[in-house]
Amino acid sequence: MKVRNITGLSKSQLEEYRRELRKEYDHYLTRNLKLDMSRGKPSGSQLDLTNGVLDKLDNYMTESGVDARNYGGLDGISEARRLFSELLDIPMEKIIIGGNSSLNLMYDAIVRLFLFGTHGNPAWRTLPKVKFLCPSPGYDRHFAICEDLGIEMITIPMKDDGPDMDMVESLVASDDSIKGIWCVPLYSNPEGICYSDEVVDRLAKMKTAAADFRIFWDNAYGVHHIYRERKLKDIFRAAEAAGNPDRVFYFFSTSKITFPGAGVALIASSPANLAEIRKHMGIQTIGHDKLNQLRTVRYLKSADGVRAHMRALAAELRPKFDMVLGTLERELGGTGLAQWRRPDGGYFISLDTLDGCAKNTVALAKQAGVVLTGAGAAFPYRKDPRDRNIRIAPTYPTLEELKEAMELFCVCVKLAGVEKLLEKAN
Amino acid sequence: MKVRNITGLSKSQLEEYRRELRKEYDHYLTRNLKLDMSRGKPSGSQLDLTNGVLDKLDNYMTESGVDARNYGGLDGISEARRLFSELLDIPMEKIIIGGNSSLNLMYDAIVRLFLFGTHGNPAWRTLPKVKFLCPSPGYDRHFAICEDLGIEMITIPMKDDGPDMDMVESLVASDDSIKGIWCVPLYSNPEGICYSDEVVDRLAKMKTAAADFRIFWDNAYGVHHIYRERKLKDIFRAAEAAGNPDRVFYFFSTSKITFPGAGVALIASSPANLAEIRKHMGIQTIGHDKLNQLRTVRYLKSADGVRAHMRALAAELRPKFDMVLGTLERELGGTGLAQWRRPDGGYFISLDTLDGCAKNTVALAKQAGVVLTGAGAAFPYRKDPRDRNIRIAPTYPTLEELKEAMELFCVCVKLAGVEKLLEKAN
Repeated sequence: MKVRNITGLSKSQLEEYRRELRKEYDHYLTRNLKLDMSRGKPSGSQLDLTNGVLDKLDNYMTESGVDARNYGGLDGISEARRLFSELLDIPMEKIIIGGNSSLNLMYDAIVRLFLFGTHGNPAWRTLPKVKFLCPSPGYDRHFAICEDLGIEMITIPMKDDGPDMDMVESLVASDDSIKGIWCVPLYSNPEGICYSDEVVDRLAKMKTAAADFRIFWDNAYGVHHIYRERKLKDIFRAAEAAGNPDRVFYFFSTSKITFPGAGVALIASSPANLAEIRKHMGIQTIGHDKLNQLRTVRYLKSADGVRAHMRALAAELRPKFDMVLGTLERELGGTGLAQWRRPDGGYFISLDTLDGCAKNTVALAKQAGVVLTGAGAAFPYRKDPRDRNIRIAPTYPTLEELKEAMELFCVCVKLAGVEKLLEKAN
Repeated sequence: MKVRNITGLSKSQLEEYRRELRKEYDHYLTRNLKLDMSRGKPSGSQLDLTNGVLDKLDNYMTESGVDARNYGGLDGISEARRLFSELLDIPMEKIIIGGNSSLNLMYDAIVRLFLFGTHGNPAWRTLPKVKFLCPSPGYDRHFAICEDLGIEMITIPMKDDGPDMDMVESLVASDDSIKGIWCVPLYSNPEGICYSDEVVDRLAKMKTAAADFRIFWDNAYGVHHIYRERKLKDIFRAAEAAGNPDRVFYFFSTSKITFPGAGVALIASSPANLAEIRKHMGIQTIGHDKLNQLRTVRYLKSADGVRAHMRALAAELRPKFDMVLGTLERELGGTGLAQWRRPDGGYFISLDTLDGCAKNTVALAKQAGVVLTGAGAAFPYRKDPRDRNIRIAPTYPTLEELKEAMELFCVCVKLAGVEKLLEKAN
């Protein structure tokens, strides 16, 4: 039976459709699928595109004559800072290269604000309450940092061009306990939304009750174009022009350019902020791994080298995104049971089921051997108020596995949807 | 003039001797030396002994079938945990492998106690005061962590077999704001002192007023034998036997085994402590660099491989230690102007000038182009109460440079000493 708008079916039609779906689903149960689509991990074949990073490092001297094997160099090697400066259009002197994890740089940046405060403002640990704005759906690991540190999270709905700025502006203007906002401004995790110039401008110049309000600008997918190359307005220049030069902490990494486990991360910020960071980071470590910085830069060569490499990655990922989007369209298009976005880049596809169906859908898929990101994961406290959002991470499985997983997934979406409609009909 | 016990000279003899020393010193001024002996950095030739780590990594799969290029593995790869387990005689399940810096693991461990507390005890940030015991001379970067976090430091004198345990026991028994002690138990930085079994036992079993008192056991030189292989009593077993299983945070790294900039660090502790660490570390990062763990372990091969490698390093370092100790003996022996220890291993030689002469000695050396570790650096707040301790780091210069630097250094010690004696005589 080819069914279109499911939401318009009668109760008996729904019951019949459920029987069909059950049969389909039971068939999947017998097939012993075993697939993990829970995280945005590259596949082995994607990683193979970067194996040159593993080559012998014949020359361990940096361009400035530093022996990268030895101690020192808190800011990172200059060739790495310059490459990312060119790639991201950020002045070199605003960049500190970290270890293999931008998440670690974010966590530590917030911990420093907690412990020490910034620019004469009280340390956040001394305040009765600290709140963060969390555009959602968003990145679960951002929200986990807030939860770990007891920061109260306020959910901000996402619009087509970024967070709901009316709401953001109104909140930050009136509440000085709101100290920050999480942003994944290009190809957002999970929806693939790109912030418009207007949103960037409004974030940069909005009046905040807190003098130490900070934007955590996690540009994780800044060069991860798949279908089309979207541009992101320069938030540093916008913030400087608005007289808020210290508002932004910018994060980037090669975790999804070279190797997730062994890439190079960076934090960029104003010179005044970097001076504070260095003061404490220089106590925390003598320096991050310069050999890995050297390996990464020697492999990527230049900003243009990164862009060429990202085109190769896009060619690897495009068939997977095509598969996901094509299957969704074919199986769910017009059913009224789900809606989703077609991202231009990034790592994810985000789908909304009918209200109240996400948990059930994920549970059904899991029972049939396909592990998805937990329902609700993309919301503060893992609570999706409408229980409808599911993040699809298509990068890890092979194309064949993905085909099977997506077909099963669509059966689960439909089954959960039909069950919900029947529940309502009773 | 070959002078022996300088402290017994008359004023006019001292004045004559000072003229001679001045002449010698002025001669050094004309030679434009330029040498940095301020930090315990290996030399290029020492690092060359480990260049195999830079080889191409042909196989990036771990023994348990994990792709080390990808995300995951917070505890570290099992081959790394096992190697260090064998090397240090610590059960594998007590070990988490970190990034390239044990200092970073220490800093973060204290920050976690600050932010979250441990085992139901209040977070240290909520306490009016937190104090640490600092056996001194000690490692300046340990003390810098305390200073950064506003932890009050209490200087504990070092004896021949470790910190003054009578003082330690009496302080921790009565003051519950004393939350920790820094220990470099084998070949201590800078004196090369090895903790006796009795000291280890007393640390492990002493009664502490604070329920959450912690020993920061930085075994940085645990396998760094140079003249003789000293053994260290197992503090974990001692603490467990005494009913204090959660008292110890143990740190180790390959910074001075392979590469300081790109080694592998670890933290070891009780299962209950590790569970707390994982809870927060798993929010802070998805995992440390597994490829570097793999590189390091593939190069070192096994605990025996590390021991063999350390014998090669000792052979590289022994002539440097011989040079320092020989020059000190020849130039300062019997003068009464200085005393020093002959370490069996580690990275440093510690020298005490006459009281009130360390700063002047370091300044004189610096003026002649030889940068030593700042006088006082080995004490809390960089204040050596007797202004006498100087840390000599012989590893970085070549043997020829070291010869020249040490000869100049001895002239500076004598000149500063004679000036002090004349000051007193006036």
